[in-house]
Amino acid sequence: MIVVMKMGSTAEQIEEVSTRLTEEGFKIHLSQGVERTIMGAIGDRTRLEALDLEALPWVEKVVPILAPYKLVSREFHPADSIIRIGDQEIGGNRVHVMAGPCAVESRAQILETAHAVREAGATFLRGGAFKPRTSPYSFQGLEEEGLRYLAEAREQTGLLVITEVIDARDVALVAEYADVLQIGARNMQNFILLKEAAKCGKPVLLKRGPSATLEEWMMAAEYIMDGGNYQVMFCERGIRTFESYTRNTLDLSMVPALHALSHLPVIIDPSHGTGKWHLVHPMAKAALAAGADGLIVEVHPHPEKAVSDGKQSLTPERFQVMMADLARLTSALDRELGEVSKCVK
Amino acid sequence: MIVVMKMGSTAEQIEEVSTRLTEEGFKIHLSQGVERTIMGAIGDRTRLEALDLEALPWVEKVVPILAPYKLVSREFHPADSIIRIGDQEIGGNRVHVMAGPCAVESRAQILETAHAVREAGATFLRGGAFKPRTSPYSFQGLEEEGLRYLAEAREQTGLLVITEVIDARDVALVAEYADVLQIGARNMQNFILLKEAAKCGKPVLLKRGPSATLEEWMMAAEYIMDGGNYQVMFCERGIRTFESYTRNTLDLSMVPALHALSHLPVIIDPSHGTGKWHLVHPMAKAALAAGADGLIVEVHPHPEKAVSDGKQSLTPERFQVMMADLARLTSALDRELGEVSKCVK
Amino acid sequence: MIVVMKMGSTAEQIEEVSTRLTEEGFKIHLSQGVERTIMGAIGDRTRLEALDLEALPWVEKVVPILAPYKLVSREFHPADSIIRIGDQEIGGNRVHVMAGPCAVESRAQILETAHAVREAGATFLRGGAFKPRTSPYSFQGLEEEGLRYLAEAREQTGLLVITEVIDARDVALVAEYADVLQIGARNMQNFILLKEAAKCGKPVLLKRGPSATLEEWMMAAEYIMDGGNYQVMFCERGIRTFESYTRNTLDLSMVPALHALSHLPVIIDPSHGTGKWHLVHPMAKAALAAGADGLIVEVHPHPEKAVSDGKQSLTPERFQVMMADLARLTSALDRELGEVSKCVK
Amino acid sequence: MIVVMKMGSTAEQIEEVSTRLTEEGFKIHLSQGVERTIMGAIGDRTRLEALDLEALPWVEKVVPILAPYKLVSREFHPADSIIRIGDQEIGGNRVHVMAGPCAVESRAQILETAHAVREAGATFLRGGAFKPRTSPYSFQGLEEEGLRYLAEAREQTGLLVITEVIDARDVALVAEYADVLQIGARNMQNFILLKEAAKCGKPVLLKRGPSATLEEWMMAAEYIMDGGNYQVMFCERGIRTFESYTRNTLDLSMVPALHALSHLPVIIDPSHGTGKWHLVHPMAKAALAAGADGLIVEVHPHPEKAVSDGKQSLTPERFQVMMADLARLTSALDRELGEVSKCVK
Repeated sequence: MIVVMKMGSTAEQIEEVSTRLTEEGFKIHLSQGVERTIMGAIGDRTRLEALDLEALPWVEKVVPILAPYKLVSREFHPADSIIRIGDQEIGGNRVHVMAGPCAVESRAQILETAHAVREAGATFLRGGAFKPRTSPYSFQGLEEEGLRYLAEAREQTGLLVITEVIDARDVALVAEYADVLQIGARNMQNFILLKEAAKCGKPVLLKRGPSATLEEWMMAAEYIMDGGNYQVMFCERGIRTFESYTRNTLDLSMVPALHALSHLPVIIDPSHGTGKWHLVHPMAKAALAAGADGLIVEVHPHPEKAVSDGKQSLTPERFQVMMADLARLTSALDRELGEVSKCVK
Repeated sequence: MIVVMKMGSTAEQIEEVSTRLTEEGFKIHLSQGVERTIMGAIGDRTRLEALDLEALPWVEKVVPILAPYKLVSREFHPADSIIRIGDQEIGGNRVHVMAGPCAVESRAQILETAHAVREAGATFLRGGAFKPRTSPYSFQGLEEEGLRYLAEAREQTGLLVITEVIDARDVALVAEYADVLQIGARNMQNFILLKEAAKCGKPVLLKRGPSATLEEWMMAAEYIMDGGNYQVMFCERGIRTFESYTRNTLDLSMVPALHALSHLPVIIDPSHGTGKWHLVHPMAKAALAAGADGLIVEVHPHPEKAVSDGKQSLTPERFQVMMADLARLTSALDRELGEVSKCVK
Repeated sequence: MIVVMKMGSTAEQIEEVSTRLTEEGFKIHLSQGVERTIMGAIGDRTRLEALDLEALPWVEKVVPILAPYKLVSREFHPADSIIRIGDQEIGGNRVHVMAGPCAVESRAQILETAHAVREAGATFLRGGAFKPRTSPYSFQGLEEEGLRYLAEAREQTGLLVITEVIDARDVALVAEYADVLQIGARNMQNFILLKEAAKCGKPVLLKRGPSATLEEWMMAAEYIMDGGNYQVMFCERGIRTFESYTRNTLDLSMVPALHALSHLPVIIDPSHGTGKWHLVHPMAKAALAAGADGLIVEVHPHPEKAVSDGKQSLTPERFQVMMADLARLTSALDRELGEVSKCVK
Repeated sequence: MIVVMKMGSTAEQIEEVSTRLTEEGFKIHLSQGVERTIMGAIGDRTRLEALDLEALPWVEKVVPILAPYKLVSREFHPADSIIRIGDQEIGGNRVHVMAGPCAVESRAQILETAHAVREAGATFLRGGAFKPRTSPYSFQGLEEEGLRYLAEAREQTGLLVITEVIDARDVALVAEYADVLQIGARNMQNFILLKEAAKCGKPVLLKRGPSATLEEWMMAAEYIMDGGNYQVMFCERGIRTFESYTRNTLDLSMVPALHALSHLPVIIDPSHGTGKWHLVHPMAKAALAAGADGLIVEVHPHPEKAVSDGKQSLTPERFQVMMADLARLTSALDRELGEVSKCVK
């Protein structure tokens, strides 16, 4: 940490700051420039936030040098983390596609979709049983009934199930049915939910908040790891910007950025990331080319009748065309698509 | 709602859309231009989101005409809503200042602050007992112990208490101690928490999410009102933009915008809105001049030792100077500052 | 400047960086932590950008400590700068209101507006003769004819004239007619135009670019001062954010921020800052309460027939009501409104 | 265009609006709902901006239905436009890579770079002779001398030359030396420069402004086409968002979005788009996978000594590795890399 003193700060003021830092266990390095005094402080990075030196009127600014995260960092764990889910692995050479409707609407809808996406090459089934909706007048999900349909679809197809949890009180219930718990974008900094998810025993897919910086996102993952759950995957789903043609701005640079800073896998959601079905296919290809470890894509048998997100959902036919394209692309990237290994159906 | 068909859409495609709308109870108006067919649809605005017509490839776009909110709207309730809390009223002619530390750190700290801000003219005491913190390594709050200290400070000073709730399971507990429940910015779209807060029987201060649009914010308030709690106040605390000199960009235009669209009071938080103590005083004045119904301001007896937000906290001395200035300003605005009416201590 | 080396960087790599810095005239301070080597470098801040040390793979990051601007800085010039224009002063105790239409549309329109705004208390007349328009199909301005009408309005009313220049080739022409040259938001980083404006001999009002940071804005002003023109005023007119209810997000915190960092006056444009006429009056009040040295406001005798910006223009009647309100407010702020001193008409 | 009247607007007010529209040549369709009167108006889309109906207090909002651009639109020109430059074509099946330093620094530097990038497979040489720099104290370019070096490099290598023009007065000069004129991001809405570039007789690469919406960007291209120059290419180089790990947020969704809305080619700049050299390679791959028609990449023989943008520049060695990877990728995408066809050297 670097502390920059204001021009004209007195010896006493400099002394006060350095005493404060020494008390907190930091080692100090003083550097007196012509215009400014600058102090370097070396110590435990996790105690940094507790020190609010900018509250002192004679401190101009405090510049943190080390990142505030630890467990999610590649420095802490240099090799790629591989998340094992059932008989699948995420974070290795195989790229996985998670597909399904935004919301579980009915038994028929989820089973039809599951068979279709498995046929096309998906390895995970997505679908929300608990839905965080902007409007109180919108469909809020089938809840446990929806979870049962997802489990039934897994039985029939061998697909693994990923589904969202939005209430800390439901974590155990969702973990009973799901193979992966999804923390949605709007809950990325719902620390209560993160702490609960840390205890669930299941891998967690952590979506980026619509206005979360890379560092805040990594700190949210740090909550889950600090709580004892090391099975975390990042999921970029677009950030909020001034551009309104797309629903969000899909920030694919997060793929190589996260791979540089962290050991955890990165999944891309081109459906929420664009909000328009006709942009999903090209952006899915771009995501893989950027190095993503997987995709999560909305597929609905009848998008125009979907209770939510119809306009960004692929039909099973379009999904199949996209999967064929992705298979070809992954091999040019020296990776391969995951496969449902169990003989089911 | 206006549905714009793509160029060259066929009679069958137009028919399909209009049938779909008619089935959902909408009345249709067809307008055939030279380049495009446009359809006006009139019906229940709350059913709009259920219809995902943009999922149809021959629909170019759907333009909603009516706002999706109802209960929060000034059309629904033309007069200003006055929120009654203890013997105070928010939303009328009196402007209230809520002040106190970011976090309740100790009994001594909260009592010292409470007396100081009451002396200077505040009518509410703020202070967090449950803290949503970006880092798992930061202080997470004194929890119920903190709530007890706040209640004790109320006893001693006559100040009303506002404090944040971050877990749906704690709503009843917090409501037992607090006069106003605060929903923090990062929980603005934590719909589980909103639904629980709707049932608590206490007024709710709803902070704007860092990347929430005005409409999404109003929809979050709609959740609370739809759940039966009409005692809602909006609180602008800055939005996330590219500018990093300030912690957030305080969007004061929301004051007149909300007063135009809604009947609910608007409070401004210049502390989080700027992140720098030396900007708090001028922005507090600006907030009142823009028409705000109140302020929520961080005050700490020793900002440089605060466990959080020290750099945006005023000392009691600076707070007093600001309050004197605000008193003079409010009278030029034909309003007056609230006062603690009860004779305590 | 602080240079942070990557973990595990070798003595040679550290040596290379420090040699590089020494060659450029920087004095070096080495600090070897357990995890990282950190280097403090003290030298000429304006040479900083020439050094691209982050291009070296073993440099983790470079953190600038001093701001890159000099002439615009309050450290360089501690007292407030007062800009003298005709017999008026901006930056002192008097607050000036600049008013008029977006574009000069006709002689009659500009004369009618000029008399109306002078009557209401404005001291400057605004109006564009050269218009930067988003669409090539929109009205592009009356050019020199418009400048002549502005000059005629000045003759008749005693108002000073501020008008925009958009082409470096027109700077001399515009400076012949105008009292203040306006550099528009989209030209804030048109460095060619800035350099030309530096030579025009007239004060310059520099609008903030829609996505310019505070530092970039100050650097743009530095261009004009570095070119020899010290008569610069900042003008905040809203930044581009995700919020679309308002045309831009008016960032009033720039008023106290600029007053802290710079000695130059700050003007606020609540018309472009909000894009809606009914938000102009409250935001104009907020601007003054935040400490602005002046306002620039769009007024049009018939907003619904304006060739541009009608929806954010006040009628003369509404402008008069606002001015009465501002007069009362300024006195509560211990300032006063400017006045046209010459006996004209 | 749809005009939504406020609740309770009178017959006279509705009449006034419809008369106004009829006078401007619009055909009107009236739709009286229970809550609102809505008016559909069909007419010339380019006259829309001239009508400022929202200035009328009884108009709630005006919703444009048709896009304001024409010549850049795919509706106007359904087939892909192919831009012919020398013996190369952009916009067809071949993907072109433009490479070179940020700034032309010396004859030796540009010749060394030119040979290196040609060797690796680039077909265009980039390099700025006129530099728009944030600071007046930074290197501002070699100007005409730089243009001569670029032309000499073209002679030696057969690479075509693309270089930026920043002053309308220099357009003819730059067009004399360059094969493609680049309009930089900060000049995207410098309409004076756009109009001049429209007359230069050379293809133009139009970079997206850091806060320009898709529509504003297309309107800027419309200026060039409306001025008679149909040889326009879009170049996405990242937008300004809250994320600061990357210099900008590279918005790759613009590739399929522009391909859907326009017939013009789309080039991606992963160097400015990320600001970090180690992100350039993965994002270049992602750009091609998204369907980009070309790339523009910064390459410098000694990035750590570059006068600008060193930290986002590839060394010739890293560029070569990337090009080999891109060659393999393009063939999986059924495209191929462009080649320098002339036998030179």
